[in-house]
Amino acid sequence: MRLRHVIVMGFVFLVVRTAPMFGQTTEKAKYAVAAADAAWLKAYQAKDVGKSVAFYDERGSMLAPNTPIATGKDALAQAIAGAFAMPGYNLVWHLRKVGLARSEDLGHTSGSYDSSFQDASGKTISDTGKYLTVWKKQANGAWKVLFDMFNSDLPAAPGVPA
Amino acid sequence: MRLRHVIVMGFVFLVVRTAPMFGQTTEKAKYAVAAADAAWLKAYQAKDVGKSVAFYDERGSMLAPNTPIATGKDALAQAIAGAFAMPGYNLVWHLRKVGLARSEDLGHTSGSYDSSFQDASGKTISDTGKYLTVWKKQANGAWKVLFDMFNSDLPAAPGVPA
Repeated sequence: MRLRHVIVMGFVFLVVRTAPMFGQTTEKAKYAVAAADAAWLKAYQAKDVGKSVAFYDERGSMLAPNTPIATGKDALAQAIAGAFAMPGYNLVWHLRKVGLARSEDLGHTSGSYDSSFQDASGKTISDTGKYLTVWKKQANGAWKVLFDMFNSDLPAAPGVPA
Repeated sequence: MRLRHVIVMGFVFLVVRTAPMFGQTTEKAKYAVAAADAAWLKAYQAKDVGKSVAFYDERGSMLAPNTPIATGKDALAQAIAGAFAMPGYNLVWHLRKVGLARSEDLGHTSGSYDSSFQDASGKTISDTGKYLTVWKKQANGAWKVLFDMFNSDLPAAPGVPA
């Protein structure tokens, strides 16, 4: 009886732990990544530097255009605070795709963004482009950003490398 | 005896199939992703459009700066052929980081690039920047590109949204 119990429990364990390895990733797990993406946007729109940085993994990086890669909380806080300090800064992004590894510990989101700010003369400078974010599930179950990258869809100014 | 055989085989199966889920991803699997990244660079450096496009997943996308996202083999072939047709086009990239899901079906590579081409006057225009690539393991074991994104580290020209 005990042996049978061990067999059954072992089988339950096998099924529960390996299910995502054989089939498709669950909708629930994809939803968790999409929810993290949406919660991150809220932190950005509240212009909350601390909350925005907190979405990054300890070894997370921002790969923004026209500046070197920023890795680690200090560099990320500086980059994000710099953006939030721009006059009239506004950012919204639109999630289009969510993907997950079968083990549901690594995922990616991607989509489009619209941003704007006011230059020194008060003129509104608008941009539209795309983003790609790689998410890593932490030991506590939270999804954190390993890499966040974006770039513009708009043509480059003459003489700027495309 | 048969039951015992079933239990032992079940346990072997459990260990073999779930090993990557509990521990670190294997160095061998990371090497396979790094090797795909290096082979892709070779195809680029040979300016072989067909081979370069073949590294993409059927639903793969290129997220290049200053142009909308390109998804699918036709759009990718057009984008890559356009780059290769630039006078004096040269590209090299340097892999810095490789990451993998525990299920070893989804990975990412990232690093830096240096590129150059000659403008209409024959002047060499150089760029240096960073890239992020998301790789998906295919049913046949080959690693293919789901997303490839890059942007410049150089300052934007005045008036261009950063």
